[in-house]
Amino acid sequence: MSKVQEIQNYLQKNQIDAAFVTTPDNVYYVSGFKSNPHERLLGVMIFKEAQPFLICPQMEIPDAQAAGWSYEVIGHQDTDNAMDVLAQAIHKRNVNPSTFAIEKAQLIVERLEALQQSFPQAQFVRLDEKINAMRVIKDENELNKLRKAAQLADYAIEVGCKEIAEGKTEMEILTAIESAIQEKGCKMSFETMVLSGPKSASPHGKPGSRKIEKGDMVLFDLGVIYDGYCSDITRTVAFGEPSAPQKAIYHAVLAANTNAIAAVKPGVRAMDLDKIARDTITDAGFGEYFTHRLGHGLGISVHEFPSITGTNDMMMEEGMVFTIEPGVYKSDVTGVRIEDDVVVTKDGVEVLTKFPKDLIVL
Amino acid sequence: MSKVQEIQNYLQKNQIDAAFVTTPDNVYYVSGFKSNPHERLLGVMIFKEAQPFLICPQMEIPDAQAAGWSYEVIGHQDTDNAMDVLAQAIHKRNVNPSTFAIEKAQLIVERLEALQQSFPQAQFVRLDEKINAMRVIKDENELNKLRKAAQLADYAIEVGCKEIAEGKTEMEILTAIESAIQEKGCKMSFETMVLSGPKSASPHGKPGSRKIEKGDMVLFDLGVIYDGYCSDITRTVAFGEPSAPQKAIYHAVLAANTNAIAAVKPGVRAMDLDKIARDTITDAGFGEYFTHRLGHGLGISVHEFPSITGTNDMMMEEGMVFTIEPGVYKSDVTGVRIEDDVVVTKDGVEVLTKFPKDLIVL
Repeated sequence: MSKVQEIQNYLQKNQIDAAFVTTPDNVYYVSGFKSNPHERLLGVMIFKEAQPFLICPQMEIPDAQAAGWSYEVIGHQDTDNAMDVLAQAIHKRNVNPSTFAIEKAQLIVERLEALQQSFPQAQFVRLDEKINAMRVIKDENELNKLRKAAQLADYAIEVGCKEIAEGKTEMEILTAIESAIQEKGCKMSFETMVLSGPKSASPHGKPGSRKIEKGDMVLFDLGVIYDGYCSDITRTVAFGEPSAPQKAIYHAVLAANTNAIAAVKPGVRAMDLDKIARDTITDAGFGEYFTHRLGHGLGISVHEFPSITGTNDMMMEEGMVFTIEPGVYKSDVTGVRIEDDVVVTKDGVEVLTKFPKDLIVL
Repeated sequence: MSKVQEIQNYLQKNQIDAAFVTTPDNVYYVSGFKSNPHERLLGVMIFKEAQPFLICPQMEIPDAQAAGWSYEVIGHQDTDNAMDVLAQAIHKRNVNPSTFAIEKAQLIVERLEALQQSFPQAQFVRLDEKINAMRVIKDENELNKLRKAAQLADYAIEVGCKEIAEGKTEMEILTAIESAIQEKGCKMSFETMVLSGPKSASPHGKPGSRKIEKGDMVLFDLGVIYDGYCSDITRTVAFGEPSAPQKAIYHAVLAANTNAIAAVKPGVRAMDLDKIARDTITDAGFGEYFTHRLGHGLGISVHEFPSITGTNDMMMEEGMVFTIEPGVYKSDVTGVRIEDDVVVTKDGVEVLTKFPKDLIVL
């Protein structure tokens, strides 16, 4: 069953007249058309009964068709009010929806207000949970893409490790990594991080002109997109023999990573996984320095549903893919994060990222 | 006057109780703190009377302070409902806003609904036009950053031209360009385009493994970020002697670009500039193949206010920065786009991008 049909069935079952999908990643998931229209309107309108359509900038119509969208494509020009074009296209279908399902976690207020103006009687309900529920379970075709994206991430870490040398800057190492991936015809899934020495303790730090010195730990956080699907890996390596406190942090984070991964299987809750990792780090004395959630869903988006936190009681199911990425950030010693991408299998876990995790001393 | 004070003055003048800024680029503009929190809440709350605060993920508090934000920073954990933390922080100020100004073109519906739930009596008005009006006029400090970003874009095109050779793929050329920019410690402002042969006629095409052949035209569209400010340039060059129809398109687009630039000065309207370029191309017989607006504002965002379209009657003022990028896309001949970044000066125009525009034959 196509994604469009699945949403149409959902609308019929729930007596919702129309669903409006506008997030580029959701549009890709539903239509096969990948585009980033910036502030321009891109969306798929699916009706309980009428034929669906895709709306996009006029100049992208051929791309949408080439991507395999077989229903109508409606174009808008930069001189149009795109939301008026949308409303006209709906009226042309001879439908007057009294309920729209919209992505409330994504749609901007201005577009909601435009719909409210064109359809003053309409109610607006959430579509987010339905699309999340569809996207969260990956089929074999999606898993194969994620496996390849993870392989490329492993390779990128390997390139990064080979580049580490006294006096090299974070940016030089980053450039070597990104060039190697580009040579494979791929793009990174987010801004690559190469953080050295004290900067490794800044979870969202920015790589710069700092030169690598003996005694640094170097943290790589990166991902690669393969055919529209993302990987996300973190490894932390030592340049020169690490100190005892650095080793203690490394081993606590590694144990948290492996303990949480070992617990992954259908039926375990997201919060259980977070707790296992957090308890491991707390027991090692670093609890206060693990300042973020354990992980996040991964797929077409590099951060997607579900969030693996201490309060999410969602049960894991076969086909879910997410990151496990405990970290400890102690600025007077080092930061360490170790992140893998995992799939829930029928009775356990498959780890997609395979780069070694024993402490590497370069 | 600081940006925060300017917004506070605006609130006082318009009897609005609070302004909530959440777009990462607007947060950077207002606070100096540059961060991309993905789905996590990042925002600056400014009150008519009370002290402002910045809200961000707990782990980013040190970065926000290091960026120079001197008012309070409120952190939220991944286990918090961040919008509840926000509401509590507002109540703690002993204020109960009855009017909020929000970015309706950016804020997601879910966050508006959370504010409506916490402040059921409140009205929500647009903040967009005020922030746009502030950001659209660049000061000398911002212009210097934009000049440097444009220089780097010129350099990137130079690198790209040197890389063109028979049998090289688009991705190989792209990699060389991005590596050269990364070696300068900078990042691209959007996904670099290198499109060759028939692909040059796809305005939003994706570079791939197509190999350059004699007779191709090659279109580069790229930009560089310098200290938080973006450039955006397009050049189209010929590999081997171009055909007469290719030359005709090139010269039509070049004339459109230079005619529009020559008309830039305070008082001219955006739509006048679009018309000048469009008329030039129409007179050359290619009007139907110029399928997008003339340009867009440029600054912290690579696409920002204002849009240079045929329906925008906004008058240009000193200090505005935008792109001029006419294009013709005729898939059986070639695509050509020529894009420059320009500043409106006291009595005319300064062109920031300086890479030559006469047809280059490699």
